[in-house]
Amino acid sequence: MSEFIKAMKFRHACKLFDDKRRISKKEIVAVLEAGRLSPSSFGLEPWHFLVIESAKVKKALEEAFFGQPQVATSSHLVILLSRKAKFFKQTSEYLDEAFGRIEKDIKAVESGKRELISFLENDLEADVTSWAKMQAYIAGANMMTAAAALGIDSCPLEGFNAKKLKAALAENIPEFDKKSYKIALAIAFGYRAGEQTDQIRWSLEKIVTFVK
Amino acid sequence: MSEFIKAMKFRHACKLFDDKRRISKKEIVAVLEAGRLSPSSFGLEPWHFLVIESAKVKKALEEAFFGQPQVATSSHLVILLSRKAKFFKQTSEYLDEAFGRIEKDIKAVESGKRELISFLENDLEADVTSWAKMQAYIAGANMMTAAAALGIDSCPLEGFNAKKLKAALAENIPEFDKKSYKIALAIAFGYRAGEQTDQIRWSLEKIVTFVK
Repeated sequence: MSEFIKAMKFRHACKLFDDKRRISKKEIVAVLEAGRLSPSSFGLEPWHFLVIESAKVKKALEEAFFGQPQVATSSHLVILLSRKAKFFKQTSEYLDEAFGRIEKDIKAVESGKRELISFLENDLEADVTSWAKMQAYIAGANMMTAAAALGIDSCPLEGFNAKKLKAALAENIPEFDKKSYKIALAIAFGYRAGEQTDQIRWSLEKIVTFVK
Repeated sequence: MSEFIKAMKFRHACKLFDDKRRISKKEIVAVLEAGRLSPSSFGLEPWHFLVIESAKVKKALEEAFFGQPQVATSSHLVILLSRKAKFFKQTSEYLDEAFGRIEKDIKAVESGKRELISFLENDLEADVTSWAKMQAYIAGANMMTAAAALGIDSCPLEGFNAKKLKAALAENIPEFDKKSYKIALAIAFGYRAGEQTDQIRWSLEKIVTFVK
């Protein structure tokens, strides 16, 4: 079995962490790096990661997560934010900066922006806010697998009340830029407390159709 | 540098594949396996993967992808489908089957379904269709990284006209169940033709806020 599949099998939604074990700085940075290097639509990386180590802040967010024990027992709680729809406009300075990294010519930047906006308006079958969140899911998936490869457990947390969590973030984290970002998902990282349940999955035959 | 980060750095949006090189059956199955083992909300795995090897079918889909050469030159084009919103209802047989894998008691199954539906109706800040697509993005991210770990290149393809692609899939793939699934994203897999461009990313400092 390859190292990668081993990591995929190690990974499970950890329901309770050992709250005495902390992830080292070096290892949490490696996990975040896997998120940073992830692909995104048009290479826009429309995300920001809040990495919460503070026990006090984790406690303050717990209620928005319906009291799930992963939040407070985790070593690091990462909130993956995604850019709001207003950033994906022809006049967006963020897009100027993003496209400007690839295209040096102002005309090429303007054309890249037009192509993106045309895609979002005419071809995409989702709203722009959800599309930006989808990009953050790519980063989140890679973070969890990267963590598993390091023997670090994780739990993806979509189960939160979005309004309550936003309010709690705004109240407890002065750096949280609520005017620019939506909450895409959260992931708790740490080390498992005790045995975990088995992985349950549909068979490959059930979920794959080969077209030869 | 860890094997995982090496894979993340190897991975890039491959714009042109060597159309003479094919991925072996064993390796494409390993890639699909990484998708299969991916986490999903409530463990529902609301996805299906169409794995297209047929040159004729790839050619027929090309136009919906605006003629991007990754489609026809790829070894395997994977279309990641996600369940339509109608499956996430109290009366859904799919949910009965999904929750029934974990909960053996009918009451527990009914209660799991109620919990899911309450979350979708009251707490989620996205439409159910987009939320199901987000799950497929997790599987897609793991597939691309798994491929990279095997030296296989990939290109995530969101750039398609959803309506045209759906029509082309329905016309060319009799097994495509358009009544049950939406198209979440596509990923072309193969081996790069020639040199690739550099990876461009925001710095970690720019996209991460530590809350200590």
